[in-house]
Amino acid sequence: MKIAVMKFGGTSVSDPEKIQRAAQRAVAARRKGLSVVVVVSAPGEMTDELLALAHRLSPKPKERELDQLISTGEQVGIALFAMACQSQGTDTISLTGAQAGIEADGRHTHAYIVRIRPGKMLAELKKGKIVVVAGFQGRTPRNDVATLGRGGSDLSAVALTSALKAKVCEIFTDVKGVYTADPRIVSGARKLKGISFEEMLELAGAGAEVMQARSLEVAERHGIAIHVRSAFHPKAGTWIVPKEKNMLEKAMVSALALDKNEVRVSITDVPDRPGVAAEILSMLAAQDIPVDMIIQSAPSREGVNHISLMTPRAFAPKAQAALAQAARRLKARVDVHEHVAKISAVGTGFRHHPWVAARMFETLAKHKINIHMIVASDLRISCVVDLRHGEAALRALHKAYGLGKK
Amino acid sequence: MKIAVMKFGGTSVSDPEKIQRAAQRAVAARRKGLSVVVVVSAPGEMTDELLALAHRLSPKPKERELDQLISTGEQVGIALFAMACQSQGTDTISLTGAQAGIEADGRHTHAYIVRIRPGKMLAELKKGKIVVVAGFQGRTPRNDVATLGRGGSDLSAVALTSALKAKVCEIFTDVKGVYTADPRIVSGARKLKGISFEEMLELAGAGAEVMQARSLEVAERHGIAIHVRSAFHPKAGTWIVPKEKNMLEKAMVSALALDKNEVRVSITDVPDRPGVAAEILSMLAAQDIPVDMIIQSAPSREGVNHISLMTPRAFAPKAQAALAQAARRLKARVDVHEHVAKISAVGTGFRHHPWVAARMFETLAKHKINIHMIVASDLRISCVVDLRHGEAALRALHKAYGLGKK
Repeated sequence: MKIAVMKFGGTSVSDPEKIQRAAQRAVAARRKGLSVVVVVSAPGEMTDELLALAHRLSPKPKERELDQLISTGEQVGIALFAMACQSQGTDTISLTGAQAGIEADGRHTHAYIVRIRPGKMLAELKKGKIVVVAGFQGRTPRNDVATLGRGGSDLSAVALTSALKAKVCEIFTDVKGVYTADPRIVSGARKLKGISFEEMLELAGAGAEVMQARSLEVAERHGIAIHVRSAFHPKAGTWIVPKEKNMLEKAMVSALALDKNEVRVSITDVPDRPGVAAEILSMLAAQDIPVDMIIQSAPSREGVNHISLMTPRAFAPKAQAALAQAARRLKARVDVHEHVAKISAVGTGFRHHPWVAARMFETLAKHKINIHMIVASDLRISCVVDLRHGEAALRALHKAYGLGKK
Repeated sequence: MKIAVMKFGGTSVSDPEKIQRAAQRAVAARRKGLSVVVVVSAPGEMTDELLALAHRLSPKPKERELDQLISTGEQVGIALFAMACQSQGTDTISLTGAQAGIEADGRHTHAYIVRIRPGKMLAELKKGKIVVVAGFQGRTPRNDVATLGRGGSDLSAVALTSALKAKVCEIFTDVKGVYTADPRIVSGARKLKGISFEEMLELAGAGAEVMQARSLEVAERHGIAIHVRSAFHPKAGTWIVPKEKNMLEKAMVSALALDKNEVRVSITDVPDRPGVAAEILSMLAAQDIPVDMIIQSAPSREGVNHISLMTPRAFAPKAQAALAQAARRLKARVDVHEHVAKISAVGTGFRHHPWVAARMFETLAKHKINIHMIVASDLRISCVVDLRHGEAALRALHKAYGLGKK
């Protein structure tokens, strides 16, 4: 039994016509003789609509009840998907996370998959059925539903690929693959044939919303290849593969990413003594506020430091409130800068090739784009610039690094 | 532990404001020291919207998948209801049918409740929580979701009342109780304090959509009193009680019902030989087509019969198709009369008081309303009249039987 795992995201199943088209892909694979497991997300904006309903009832709904509520989105998705496959003449069964044997821990709204018992799925596959599994959810030891956090359907797909001992996990989405830069902004952007897990992780951190980061880590650890491709076009997309197999290893810069959904937070006049940075960051960590690009300046002659970081726009009020508390104690000041963009180059070997960073700074300078913050590692260089310069910077760098169509 | 079972229908939870108001009722009961179990239907039109989605994907979706789909309506309802109770400061947990221990057989879309294991519910009640259970659904032996058919949440509420050994089941709805006639049509209609199960069953058969008939039968069998009342007004509604306790037992006619949602089907020139009526009815039964008022005329001199019956408008095409087949074989003719209404008087002891029927016929004659069909039993007299005369007939009969405010 050769098993294919196919995951369809919410934009690929947002209306009945798209569900029929997505189902055609699954039915075609089944007719080729593959045993097909489909992982489906909630159609369209359903999760957000349910969350909005919840917040009309309670300012802070309990997470168990939130999971009970939003897990229905995927349940609607699998039932409709199964009906579509059936209407195309293929025997199909839908399974919720619990029915599929996906066991999760009790961390509601951000649970981990503990184990998958594939017995039921394998039995249905043996009967020749397409098995359509609800992503994003599992059953807790208390028989509750728990969801896996944003992008959790990717994680479900990867975990099922591993549990079913399949080799490839296909991620069907509304883009054709991973590009050297967002093709909506950079007209010459090129689709990559392959990219390494490390680079994809850096791209995810740089704001490219192709796949959930956690699912990439799990796929790499279990030796699963991922194929990111379009739900609406038959052509191959981009393969995410271990580094040694990465077809593009020799290219210094693989791709660029522009993130306009983060703000810069500065804490100025922080006393220069041990433990202060840790204190500030632990305030953020305690509230699960994601941060990127943490920078601390060298202490000034007055014995104070400045700390800056980037955080998603949606978390800015929460971050500001948490830091204001710390700032009062430390007699420091907190500022939030809204109109910024983060531009990143992702690749490999940057540490040994300083020209990569140099070319970024030169290019931005040539275009009179001021840089607010810089962070560089071996795999990524990120600069924060004014929001209004973001797209021009992306186009200029795409050209400077020669990433366009060959 | 004194347990109160409170059921809220879809119209009582159709938006967040209504859910908050309904939750207030549950929270108030809990604060009075009662252990509260709430049964919730799908909010508003959600079930119908999901069914419409399903039919855009498949002309005849599989019933297992339909159940997987539409059971999400109640799951959304319980999660939102629980959040509302929590936001009012009361510890609450929502449970799907499966989580609540409601076991159903595998007759998808019209399942029966086989057993209820109340352990989980009782454990949560003992912790002081309000327990909010999804109506309309149960778990099958194969770990699938099965739904209980239209009005199934009433059945869930009654079955839970029995399993939890509670005495009363409160049915909260958008009307204030059971009336002598539809108050939207008859201005002098009076709310009944009490009515017997038999009369309620006849009213349900006569088209009054207060409660699902099957749930009434179960309640009567298990000695459960039902209180039908408004979700939005605190006043008492109507008690449905066993016959011997019926406060209105002496009144000949308890209530009238007008049903404009049925059509009359006639099969004319049917050969007069044994088994023909059975053959015709079994064609309808095989397709689960509900029928009422089956009448067969005495055979004419030509040796043919005429059979007439009433069926819900929604089933008319299905009924016509099924009967056309039988008609071809029998050389009979099938006609559907769309513009008819069924008017019924419900009460007790009609057999021994022929004046009840006589008054109906007199009253209609006085108003020049022609009667197409009559069926009378001990508990109900129904006449079919022209649709355009239905409301006038209802008002005239309400007055003739003296049912108005005392």
